[in-house]
Amino acid sequence: MASIFSKIIAGEIPSHKVYEDDNYYAFLDIFPVQKGHTLVVPKKEVDDMFDLDDETLAGLYVVAKKISKAIKKVFPCNRVGHAVIGLEVPHAHMHLIPINGMSDMNFEHKLKLTPEELAGIANDIKSNIE
Amino acid sequence: MASIFSKIIAGEIPSHKVYEDDNYYAFLDIFPVQKGHTLVVPKKEVDDMFDLDDETLAGLYVVAKKISKAIKKVFPCNRVGHAVIGLEVPHAHMHLIPINGMSDMNFEHKLKLTPEELAGIANDIKSNIE
Repeated sequence: MASIFSKIIAGEIPSHKVYEDDNYYAFLDIFPVQKGHTLVVPKKEVDDMFDLDDETLAGLYVVAKKISKAIKKVFPCNRVGHAVIGLEVPHAHMHLIPINGMSDMNFEHKLKLTPEELAGIANDIKSNIE
Repeated sequence: MASIFSKIIAGEIPSHKVYEDDNYYAFLDIFPVQKGHTLVVPKKEVDDMFDLDDETLAGLYVVAKKISKAIKKVFPCNRVGHAVIGLEVPHAHMHLIPINGMSDMNFEHKLKLTPEELAGIANDIKSNIE
C-alpha cells in the first residue's frame, strides 16, 4: 500500500507544497514544532533513509540545503536544524526546523496553525527558493 | 581559533575515532544519548552545515550512511536516527544515534560510559565499516 507521503506526492492527499523536482518533494509538516517546519522526502518510497542509493541520498541533502536557505529568509533564525527519526511514517523524511536554541527542536512541542497560516507560510518559503 | 573538533581531527585532543578519510572524520560522542552515538564532521570547519559546498555536504551523507550500517550491526536497532542541531560546538556535525523509539533520541538524556567502554564501542563500530 502506498504510504501517506506517496499519496501526498501523487496529489491524492493535499499538502502545503514548497518544492518538487523529479526525485524529491517538500511540504509543510501540519503538526509543526516551529513555524516553517518542513518535510523533505525522496519520491522513491523507502522506509529507512539509509536504504536509499548513495546518489538519491546525497541529492536529498543538497535539496534540503536549498529549502533551508529559503526557510531562514522567511523565519530568521540561528540555523535550520534537521533530523531524520523516521518512526512515525514508514517513508523516509527529513525534518527541517528553524531554531535558535536546542529546545526549539523538541518534537513533543507542537504548534497549532490554521490551514490559512500554513498556506501563507508555504507560499513564502516557495517564493524564496532560488 | 580552531574549534574543538578541528583539534580532535588534528589529533591534538584524543577521540574515540571510528572513521576518517580526506574530507570527513567520525568519532564517538563522549556524552552519548545511546550506546553507539557517533558524530560525523566535515574536516572543513564551517559553523552551519548548510554553508558547506554541495559536494562536501552530499558526501557527508554518504559517509553517514556507511557508518550507520556499522552502528546498526553493533547495536541492533529499528534504525539509526540522525540530526544536525549544531548549537553546542561551532563546527558542523551530524549526530548518528541507534534508536528504537522517538524517545531514544532525547538529547536531555545522557549515558555515563567509561573510557574503556567507549574504546570498545569505537573498535566494534570501526571493524564493521565496509
